[in-house]
Amino acid sequence: MKPAVCLLSGGLDSSTCLAWAKQQGFAVHALSFDYGQRHRFELTAAQRIAAQVGAVEHKVIPIDLRAFGGSALTSDIAVPKGRDTAAMSIGIPITYVPARNTIFLSFALAWAEVLGAEDIVIGVNAVDYSGYPDCRPEFIEAFTRLANLATRAGVEGTQNLRIHTPLIALTKAGITRLGHELGVDFALTSTCYDPDEQGRPCGACDACLLRLKGFDEAGLTDPLPYPPHED
Amino acid sequence: MKPAVCLLSGGLDSSTCLAWAKQQGFAVHALSFDYGQRHRFELTAAQRIAAQVGAVEHKVIPIDLRAFGGSALTSDIAVPKGRDTAAMSIGIPITYVPARNTIFLSFALAWAEVLGAEDIVIGVNAVDYSGYPDCRPEFIEAFTRLANLATRAGVEGTQNLRIHTPLIALTKAGITRLGHELGVDFALTSTCYDPDEQGRPCGACDACLLRLKGFDEAGLTDPLPYPPHED
Repeated sequence: MKPAVCLLSGGLDSSTCLAWAKQQGFAVHALSFDYGQRHRFELTAAQRIAAQVGAVEHKVIPIDLRAFGGSALTSDIAVPKGRDTAAMSIGIPITYVPARNTIFLSFALAWAEVLGAEDIVIGVNAVDYSGYPDCRPEFIEAFTRLANLATRAGVEGTQNLRIHTPLIALTKAGITRLGHELGVDFALTSTCYDPDEQGRPCGACDACLLRLKGFDEAGLTDPLPYPPHED
Repeated sequence: MKPAVCLLSGGLDSSTCLAWAKQQGFAVHALSFDYGQRHRFELTAAQRIAAQVGAVEHKVIPIDLRAFGGSALTSDIAVPKGRDTAAMSIGIPITYVPARNTIFLSFALAWAEVLGAEDIVIGVNAVDYSGYPDCRPEFIEAFTRLANLATRAGVEGTQNLRIHTPLIALTKAGITRLGHELGVDFALTSTCYDPDEQGRPCGACDACLLRLKGFDEAGLTDPLPYPPHED
């Protein structure tokens, strides 16, 4: 089995990606980051999903993105709640973490180089992508180009790095359906930007609202314990 | 003064870059990494040089590149000693750290984005570059392209990121002369891959040999306390 490095946050998207990579026949090496995120509970979810899906290995790399700040996910800036999902694709929200995917992919590249892996899998999505610049196809293409100039094996011509983005053209409903078909246990995943201490989702941040919309449109039920809905 | 993020290892090259950035009129934000390098003494050097040159700020980010291994600088693989400097530009040595400059530049990008800085300075060098793929001009060009697709301000068209590589076309002798002209206190720098516990250089690793050759060819004397030479 060929090795692949798969970025895993523990959310719906990356968990579905992990299951996709496994189904493609890769020996999956899952990579998560403890980066000072306020939704650190997702690392517990990542660990559970890596075990459920059957990753060969799961590494959690500590990096301190709080050192730079600049995001609601890594500082004291409040996470926006109750936004209209249609408005989320306009502009770049305050939950954007500067250069996060660039940093995450750089670490994935380092691990891929050491493993001799040619395949990196990331769950970016350009449809319901919450307006993040580093989730766009042109960003992924530029990173692929960089990756093949950055490594020893790339220079020696013995490694051709590919970044797989199996979710890039899917809606949240499409991702939810794919995850369901691949047997992802959604009860183990964690998507919320602002969960409580037990990891229960808030149900009102952008991430929760997009996830709930995805389940709704896919005709599936989200097994997570959301707080009672108040209209 | 415009802000610039300057990668600073504490060695001859990056210290010269820091002084160059300062001379160019930038408010210099120096960035170092505690990445599990065996030559961790360089962080002490970086701190001293940041103070000598007059950086506005100096951050040291802990990242664990030992988690992946694959290099003599981050694992128990021995650092090669006594190599012919002419042979160092052939092939990629075991001191190469997978994806290191990609990772370092990604963090610099994150900080630049938060600071609103358009300028990143890195001391890569394509002449006596010890054979590292991520020190080549094509790598830097690919990263610049990526950077401008990766950030909020890049997407919004309000930030045009540039990566400055003032040393890229210089020989080690040229770098040494430039550092000398810019007033870098070379006694504060640390270049060795395998220093002793007091930070004294071994005088025999690739980094020491290239540095000594640079000083020699520049007609300057290296103030560092090398061990007595044995022929």
